[in-house]
Amino acid sequence: MSRLERLSADLGCRFGDISLLEAALTHRSAGGNNNERLEFLGDAVVNLVIAEELFRRRPELPEGDLSRLRASLVRGSTLAEMAADLDLGSCLRLGPGERKSGGFRRGSILADALEAVFGAIYLDGGFAAAAAAIRKLYSARLSDLPPVDELKDPKTRLQEYLQARGRPVPNYGVADVAGEDHRQRFTVECRLPDDGRCFSGEGGSRREAEQAAARACLEGLHADA
Amino acid sequence: MSRLERLSADLGCRFGDISLLEAALTHRSAGGNNNERLEFLGDAVVNLVIAEELFRRRPELPEGDLSRLRASLVRGSTLAEMAADLDLGSCLRLGPGERKSGGFRRGSILADALEAVFGAIYLDGGFAAAAAAIRKLYSARLSDLPPVDELKDPKTRLQEYLQARGRPVPNYGVADVAGEDHRQRFTVECRLPDDGRCFSGEGGSRREAEQAAARACLEGLHADA
Repeated sequence: MSRLERLSADLGCRFGDISLLEAALTHRSAGGNNNERLEFLGDAVVNLVIAEELFRRRPELPEGDLSRLRASLVRGSTLAEMAADLDLGSCLRLGPGERKSGGFRRGSILADALEAVFGAIYLDGGFAAAAAAIRKLYSARLSDLPPVDELKDPKTRLQEYLQARGRPVPNYGVADVAGEDHRQRFTVECRLPDDGRCFSGEGGSRREAEQAAARACLEGLHADA
Repeated sequence: MSRLERLSADLGCRFGDISLLEAALTHRSAGGNNNERLEFLGDAVVNLVIAEELFRRRPELPEGDLSRLRASLVRGSTLAEMAADLDLGSCLRLGPGERKSGGFRRGSILADALEAVFGAIYLDGGFAAAAAAIRKLYSARLSDLPPVDELKDPKTRLQEYLQARGRPVPNYGVADVAGEDHRQRFTVECRLPDDGRCFSGEGGSRREAEQAAARACLEGLHADA
């Protein structure tokens, strides 16, 4: 059994046009018909299939929670793990430079190739074939979804924590900006208006620093409790 | 013919379960079974259908250009225009507050409802039914796609303009940050290293100010030419 036959079997599908699968496994460094356009298509396929699965499996969740759950399932690191489980790296076609530098193990290359494979299945067998392959690959992750609260960013978690206790929302303020243009470091303070305490966080943007400050504040509040 | 029957006819589809279409047209202000979850699903449906159309119609375009074209076709303002053409506003169910303030004409409400309608068609008739309705609605826009260059942001256009002429890339630097925390105004300068000229731009974030400076620079270069 060739590598591509084994991969097709693991995906539960049988390609009519195997050149689509070959293109999906061809990184741009290898030149020729590479997988970037198929990745564009496959990204949209997996987004819809996972959206529908979550929509049906979690009828109680509002749109924001469905979005967060989907983001955790289709992000690069999750796709890269699944690609590694499929041993996709051994099927990749890379240029000589990428091959020498271990590109077949790089997460982003694996994740992009898996999305391209989804695009190839879609073109070859249609939506139902692609949906079946994606559901098969995701079946364990879909049966064991993470708690929605864990997916929220710290600012959202902090706001919900305070609101649930009837406390006012925090104030965020930039306390310091240091460093040169392209490597600025922001320091933000998160102040709880009802007890006056203040927690600070740092980051490469104001948004990042605010999230870090909110995380510090949550940790402070949990330490109290 | 009722409003919903006319809408179904305009979409080229016949609902088995009309309550799905009713839910898609129910804004959260009306309470009950609203359209937010259907919008989440429909957004993914239209993204895939338009991705495939562009993939097939424009085989010469790289992934980045396909993404930009799709973004222009599925953004809120485009969806709101299509919703207005369908007279979706007259079918919406809004709460009393939104009704009084003219919510049935608000672009974001119309755009969200149209996405929810796509989600409803998908649940009712499957992917093929939804794809057919979306292709019908988009047929004029798909036959008359905008030039890809017009969709690029100013920084990208400037970089490509300079590279095509063998000139070095510009340098961007923050010249000034003014105003309070939540209403900061950034001033960025874009400098052309080979002729020393400098163009400035302002915005509410560094990114915005850089784009404004790049736009000013492009205008300066075009004025020369």
